[in-house]
Amino acid sequence: MKTLIKEPLTRNAKNTFNMIIESAIDLFYKNGYHGTTVNNITQDAGIAAGTFYLYFPSKLSLYKHILIMFSHNIRKTIAANVSEKTSRYEKEREGIKSFIMLAKENPQMYNIIWESLYIDRALFKDYYESFANRYIRGLDQSVSNKEIREIDTEVVSYILMGITNFIGLKVVLNLGKNNDDIDHIVDVVMDLIKHGLFT
Amino acid sequence: MKTLIKEPLTRNAKNTFNMIIESAIDLFYKNGYHGTTVNNITQDAGIAAGTFYLYFPSKLSLYKHILIMFSHNIRKTIAANVSEKTSRYEKEREGIKSFIMLAKENPQMYNIIWESLYIDRALFKDYYESFANRYIRGLDQSVSNKEIREIDTEVVSYILMGITNFIGLKVVLNLGKNNDDIDHIVDVVMDLIKHGLFT
Repeated sequence: MKTLIKEPLTRNAKNTFNMIIESAIDLFYKNGYHGTTVNNITQDAGIAAGTFYLYFPSKLSLYKHILIMFSHNIRKTIAANVSEKTSRYEKEREGIKSFIMLAKENPQMYNIIWESLYIDRALFKDYYESFANRYIRGLDQSVSNKEIREIDTEVVSYILMGITNFIGLKVVLNLGKNNDDIDHIVDVVMDLIKHGLFT
Repeated sequence: MKTLIKEPLTRNAKNTFNMIIESAIDLFYKNGYHGTTVNNITQDAGIAAGTFYLYFPSKLSLYKHILIMFSHNIRKTIAANVSEKTSRYEKEREGIKSFIMLAKENPQMYNIIWESLYIDRALFKDYYESFANRYIRGLDQSVSNKEIREIDTEVVSYILMGITNFIGLKVVLNLGKNNDDIDHIVDVVMDLIKHGLFT
């Protein structure tokens, strides 16, 4: 995914660059991508309108940049937490918990990633396929290690992303009840993934 | 959820009413809710601009009406298919398969329901909480029947909705590969739900 943005070089430019990004995240979350103009962003960031275009050719390029930032952030955080675990079960638990905690701490992130479906479907497809591909590699390794049963790991990657995303959604939007005890929620997920649902 | 629309009484009025809805579904899917105006809808439907307001006070009220239509349609279709099945396992398989088939046949439906998150978060919350509540009732019954293990059925309802939604998404947007064989995909889901993921 190319964005054609101009990275800031001086400390001053970096500050401006980051202020644009912070204002955009805030406004995209509050008013949606379509409800936010470049003018809204520069006003919120307290900079001249023209300054925006020193870094970003368009609102879309800024959005793409934020999407890549979020994607890196999610992967890095999960990878760091998971790396301390040895068994696949522990890795899975930690990965799922890390994602839910990230979503809880950054409700904007969740909302803005999903909005790609309504901005450019190709971005959304790209985002989830690339996430799935990394997931599949990990699952395949665990099938080789005989920690996971022989199963279609591509379908499983979407099953696990679906579980994590909907549980994240439940926590972020406070759907239903009992959304404070993340460990309990993750325990239920792991119980189901380990022992199945039926008697 | 109240919509304050005026239901059409004559056959002629019903035709107009349905043409507005069909055009709106088509345009919301193609250009998004925010990218569609009432004028776009009346032009596409081939009716006078003022005619729209005979039935709907606003674009939002039309959107809400469509959301309720979809919701009823999904519930009715799943309920009809599931009613023929006796065991919880069979009911679950049929429910999941019905949802995926519905999503595949109506990609607009999927897209328009999710867009509620970017139109009015309360609509989205309402939609999924009410879907979850029905799911929980069914799961609780199966726990009583001892077909499902003692487990937090509220969390489980979001786990199962997450699985079904992401698999639906995979099929609708053709994410990854092997999206034609729905029965295989549903088999993998049921295998995981029945036997778990780990060795």
